[in-house]
Amino acid sequence: MKTIVNPARSEWANILKRPTQTLQDIESTVNEIFEDIARHGDDAIKKYTAIFDGVQLEDCKVTETEIALAEQTVSKDLKQAIQQAKNNIETFHASQKTVSNKIETMPGIVCWSEKRAIERIGLYIPGGSAPLFSTVLMLAVPAKLVGCKSIVLCTPPNSKGQIASEILYAAKLCGVNTIYKIGGIQAIAAMTFGTQTIQKVYKIFGPGNQFVTVAKQMATKFGIAIDMPAGPSELLVLADDSGNVEYVAADLLSQAEHGSDSQVLLVTTSKSFSENVQVEVQKQLQELPRKAIAEKAIANSLTIIVKTNQEALDLINEYGPEHLILATQDNPYFIAGIQNAGSVFIGKYSPESAGDYASGTNHTLPTNGYSKAFSGVNLDSFTKNITFQELTREGLKSIGQTVELMAEAEGLQAHKNAVSIRLKEL
Amino acid sequence: MKTIVNPARSEWANILKRPTQTLQDIESTVNEIFEDIARHGDDAIKKYTAIFDGVQLEDCKVTETEIALAEQTVSKDLKQAIQQAKNNIETFHASQKTVSNKIETMPGIVCWSEKRAIERIGLYIPGGSAPLFSTVLMLAVPAKLVGCKSIVLCTPPNSKGQIASEILYAAKLCGVNTIYKIGGIQAIAAMTFGTQTIQKVYKIFGPGNQFVTVAKQMATKFGIAIDMPAGPSELLVLADDSGNVEYVAADLLSQAEHGSDSQVLLVTTSKSFSENVQVEVQKQLQELPRKAIAEKAIANSLTIIVKTNQEALDLINEYGPEHLILATQDNPYFIAGIQNAGSVFIGKYSPESAGDYASGTNHTLPTNGYSKAFSGVNLDSFTKNITFQELTREGLKSIGQTVELMAEAEGLQAHKNAVSIRLKEL
Repeated sequence: MKTIVNPARSEWANILKRPTQTLQDIESTVNEIFEDIARHGDDAIKKYTAIFDGVQLEDCKVTETEIALAEQTVSKDLKQAIQQAKNNIETFHASQKTVSNKIETMPGIVCWSEKRAIERIGLYIPGGSAPLFSTVLMLAVPAKLVGCKSIVLCTPPNSKGQIASEILYAAKLCGVNTIYKIGGIQAIAAMTFGTQTIQKVYKIFGPGNQFVTVAKQMATKFGIAIDMPAGPSELLVLADDSGNVEYVAADLLSQAEHGSDSQVLLVTTSKSFSENVQVEVQKQLQELPRKAIAEKAIANSLTIIVKTNQEALDLINEYGPEHLILATQDNPYFIAGIQNAGSVFIGKYSPESAGDYASGTNHTLPTNGYSKAFSGVNLDSFTKNITFQELTREGLKSIGQTVELMAEAEGLQAHKNAVSIRLKEL
Repeated sequence: MKTIVNPARSEWANILKRPTQTLQDIESTVNEIFEDIARHGDDAIKKYTAIFDGVQLEDCKVTETEIALAEQTVSKDLKQAIQQAKNNIETFHASQKTVSNKIETMPGIVCWSEKRAIERIGLYIPGGSAPLFSTVLMLAVPAKLVGCKSIVLCTPPNSKGQIASEILYAAKLCGVNTIYKIGGIQAIAAMTFGTQTIQKVYKIFGPGNQFVTVAKQMATKFGIAIDMPAGPSELLVLADDSGNVEYVAADLLSQAEHGSDSQVLLVTTSKSFSENVQVEVQKQLQELPRKAIAEKAIANSLTIIVKTNQEALDLINEYGPEHLILATQDNPYFIAGIQNAGSVFIGKYSPESAGDYASGTNHTLPTNGYSKAFSGVNLDSFTKNITFQELTREGLKSIGQTVELMAEAEGLQAHKNAVSIRLKEL
């Protein structure tokens, strides 16, 4: 870890800069595949599955038999773990339900808003070295809670045309309607346009590599909503002398093992603490199966030593970390002051892993500083807010003139007239 | 208005198709201006203001003197109207505040979420023939309510380098910090990248023409959030024999005057009612100052006659109108069943104009069928949802094994280790 001591504020923006991604190169590939799938549907999907996943699939839809088999493969212990995680995710996301806000803004003018489920959603679950079935829970549980009618899941098959059992099991458990063996750009394009087999969705959720990221951005051009833009995962640990060196080192490494481009930061007011953490990180690193990956991420990561809590808070808000662990004596100060972060873990018994899997909060969170403007996935991500209003004669009378004056001042006579024609009769 | 009687469901998608926009042609222009402004900042802005707005501006920032002058220009009546609208918008948007959802998902695992204001936002207000000051209220009032620190407003100057007094007055009244005389693509680029004069924002709100729409889409590529994608404004009126012919005609025309590309639909179970409306529309049309525009929109608009309420409801949900007026005997049936709409106006005394200006609801709404996945602007549009969690020893003990099992199954040993290292000591 590179250590920076008391950097000047003017240097913060530069120090905290994320590595730039070169999305331009990818864009033309994505464009090409999108056009092909918009035009040739299922045939084009088969072609890209053969090219990118190395398997010829006659039917990309996962069968009931495959799901039943998967159910037999997952161990009883893991099933129980998944069930406990699901329960907590349900409990927490249900707590985000809002009650009716029906209100009379003036006598006779009743306004309210209601959140109604997005009817068709698509979930993308990456394949690759590890089956990220926890993301299935994070996306399908809240979708089911709000009542999304159609939940489609796309995930790439391996070279034998199979999907990891854990993903199939979690999907079935959470009420996903249909699972397709489609990965990468072609999956996002299929959900964007629809094909003979796959129905178009209204919103696409889920993480992915650079290709998936650019494909999701491309989908928005065609009016499809996405959960949020994505980037490499991040953790910022804020600790002072009261922190536990072993725990902090383990937390930093849990982030570092995600990928060599993972962003790991330690911000601390204590130089000696940071030195101890660095030693401990090297020690724990040796025993990790994903050592090679974590080592690279750690080499690129930063320790920043600041003078005061205020400075630490400002620096965190400037960075806007996806995950933030607070391991200080003054956690309440930081809880109150945090403006930009995805998810905050408080105290020594709240490792990021808890929220990644099972405490109940969502792990689909804004990276790359997007926490300055974007929320992590939450219950509202699966609904739209529709407003309603009903005016009585009295209500319309009381704001009629206001509407007339404003419409006229905006040069919109027909807007005015829609009120005047009613007022005449009142 | 073209009338379609009892169309088959298989034809709906085709009938309800919005006119396609040709955004591809615009994209290269937008790209070019974005690159220029990212590189040359204020100088480039000056150049484009001269080209597109026909005026050389030394300083694009509106001065205190200009604002003070504007305040003197706006009539007392209009000021009162604006104040009343502002009060209602404040009341309604304040009703959308959510309370804390702090919850123990399991003993010792406390999770909650908090909405914190987006610190820097940018508002775009179009210029052109009419000064759309009502949009200033719709965007600045909720931004101020949640506590956005910096609210910047960009709007194009006229050829004399001036901004409409109503816009300046409304902006001042609502607490907008800084107003710039910058329009179109260059305004969106300035707020995306920042320049020597203009600070970069985190989220951009507001309507605009095709150029602004494409520029906002482009801004998302650079990590800037936007309120929603945009398209021509729309109204769908649903009426049966109980509807008032004059009112419905006036409502349709209020939408039609927005632009020749405005989308106007009448859906009804009554053929005779629709015929009466068509006659009345032609009558009222003659007296409108914006007759030429409204006439074109009406010529492109549709009357669809359906057999049953159920069919009407399904058709509306397939279309997903921005504005929906319910003028039937069975309004509660439709209120309960509407899944896709931006804002719903119920009964004969609730014209769309009421919500456009003064009832309290927001008028920045999803067009082009985006209501299937997007909300209109609301209080949450100006905040991010941050999650927090704090586990006790007991809490971590109770889910520790679940996390370990799931992390291991995903092949993420360091994630497991962050829990194991703590459990060892508990």
